[in-house]
Amino acid sequence: MAFPKSGVIAIGCLATLGACAPVPIEPPPVAPMRATTHAQVIEQSTPADWRSVDPQNTLYLELPTGRVVIELAPLFAPAHVENIKTLVRGKYFDGLRVTRAQENYVVQWGDPDGKRDFEGAARSLPAEFTSMLANELRFTPLPDGDLYAPEVGFSGGFPVARDKDTGLAWMAHCYGMVGVGRGVAPNSGSGAELYVVIGHAPRHLDRNVTLVGRVLDGMEHLTTLPRGSGPLGFYEKDEPRVPIKAMRVAADVSPAQRTELEVLRTDTAAFVRLIEARRFRREEWFVEPGGNVELCNMPVPVRRRTAR
Amino acid sequence: MAFPKSGVIAIGCLATLGACAPVPIEPPPVAPMRATTHAQVIEQSTPADWRSVDPQNTLYLELPTGRVVIELAPLFAPAHVENIKTLVRGKYFDGLRVTRAQENYVVQWGDPDGKRDFEGAARSLPAEFTSMLANELRFTPLPDGDLYAPEVGFSGGFPVARDKDTGLAWMAHCYGMVGVGRGVAPNSGSGAELYVVIGHAPRHLDRNVTLVGRVLDGMEHLTTLPRGSGPLGFYEKDEPRVPIKAMRVAADVSPAQRTELEVLRTDTAAFVRLIEARRFRREEWFVEPGGNVELCNMPVPVRRRTAR
Repeated sequence: MAFPKSGVIAIGCLATLGACAPVPIEPPPVAPMRATTHAQVIEQSTPADWRSVDPQNTLYLELPTGRVVIELAPLFAPAHVENIKTLVRGKYFDGLRVTRAQENYVVQWGDPDGKRDFEGAARSLPAEFTSMLANELRFTPLPDGDLYAPEVGFSGGFPVARDKDTGLAWMAHCYGMVGVGRGVAPNSGSGAELYVVIGHAPRHLDRNVTLVGRVLDGMEHLTTLPRGSGPLGFYEKDEPRVPIKAMRVAADVSPAQRTELEVLRTDTAAFVRLIEARRFRREEWFVEPGGNVELCNMPVPVRRRTAR
Repeated sequence: MAFPKSGVIAIGCLATLGACAPVPIEPPPVAPMRATTHAQVIEQSTPADWRSVDPQNTLYLELPTGRVVIELAPLFAPAHVENIKTLVRGKYFDGLRVTRAQENYVVQWGDPDGKRDFEGAARSLPAEFTSMLANELRFTPLPDGDLYAPEVGFSGGFPVARDKDTGLAWMAHCYGMVGVGRGVAPNSGSGAELYVVIGHAPRHLDRNVTLVGRVLDGMEHLTTLPRGSGPLGFYEKDEPRVPIKAMRVAADVSPAQRTELEVLRTDTAAFVRLIEARRFRREEWFVEPGGNVELCNMPVPVRRRTAR
């Protein structure tokens, strides 16, 4: 007995979508809404709907169980992204350990002693919690509102909130997002301590932390880590901590050793159809198709790159 | 460098809360809003703010790594809760295995062959997706709205949505909620296949599945399981599957062997203060205190029961 069966072909029509109307004799002036499922949108996508990921803005976090692939977002956090790449290229993270795994919250890694050489990277940076990008972004909005921001949607593959009145935009703390740990002072972060969201979106962290990207692949290497038993999920001294074998910029890894991924572009008609497929569930399994979708319940599809 | 420090004592005042107004000479006619943090609300709670959990409506899922404690919700799903208890008491689940672990979604267990004796339990039950409880529940509303329901809040410790116009109420698919797997037919579930939400709340499942309770303790025994490599996270035949040592109703376990938990009552002033503490973050670490809270970002506190 399988439970939520994705991939089931939707049959029949749904009155709420108006898809039961008689077939017009003349071609309709606009393309009719296709009552497609998530799986069908992906199946019907073309190569142009997907993009490869810039290896200069991709990080590999190499753990004993495998690789975590992170796409960086230099548009939203240019100084932090640059600093993190400097740290990575200085092998700052190699041989460090995961320091924290808190249930339904974050996994975090860095140098608990704070003694490592920064190799030319900044030890602290001005916060990049928001950017003056609201009216410049290529932005695909979600139509159903949000509890934490005036408007939300996607830009460049990232979940983004914006406020057109103030001009501010910022990335949102959805599952898999990567952020910069900091102390009490807003400008105390550098990127030398990084965390990934592994639970329900802690959206209250939005605009309180600099986000720098999201995990595209390998989340399971983080989410399955034993939880730390100390306060906030930090590991206690006597607990085994998973070592970081290496952290690399993908461009510095030989092409044969890279993880070749493609991400569904969020500025395409295919992505808009995917939003509709998530808002109204047409799979046969659903009895209540819904009608709304929330930002962090709209993951952006990633797949292994295929030969063309 | 610690990141979100709970437990930090808030100092100063926040203009947005009006807490900076001059101290009145006369006692105020109503209790002033206390600018408390989550940690302070818990510290200031009294024993009466907490409840113990009914052992007749508590399940223990015994895994090799430890115990998962589930509180059942007979008010919302009386027939399924009763059927599950019959299955558990017939030792239906003992010796079965976890069958599915899907990243950012669910962990599921049951009998993949469907050959076990049901020991008097029903093999299928009418769906209990919603109940006519909206106007009868003891209900603590959240003030900030919801994308999936007309109104949301808490009742009896569970995250609940309601629609006063239709009279319907239903539990919501937040992290840790326990549901009944089913096939395509809405009435095909029985409770012989159960799942727990381990990722961002899949609220699109609301009103599509019968929810029966939530995990109070031991989530990490589920969330850290290796993910299944088959479709939808089902384990393939050659993958090791974690065995279920036993599943028990807590009342059938000797008192010395029980996990004694207390849950913060959701019908108390303390819980309303906790909602406010989650809406406006007063911890020193926050620079943007927020203002809203979303249903599944409002976990109900659980603690080990202390001697009184």
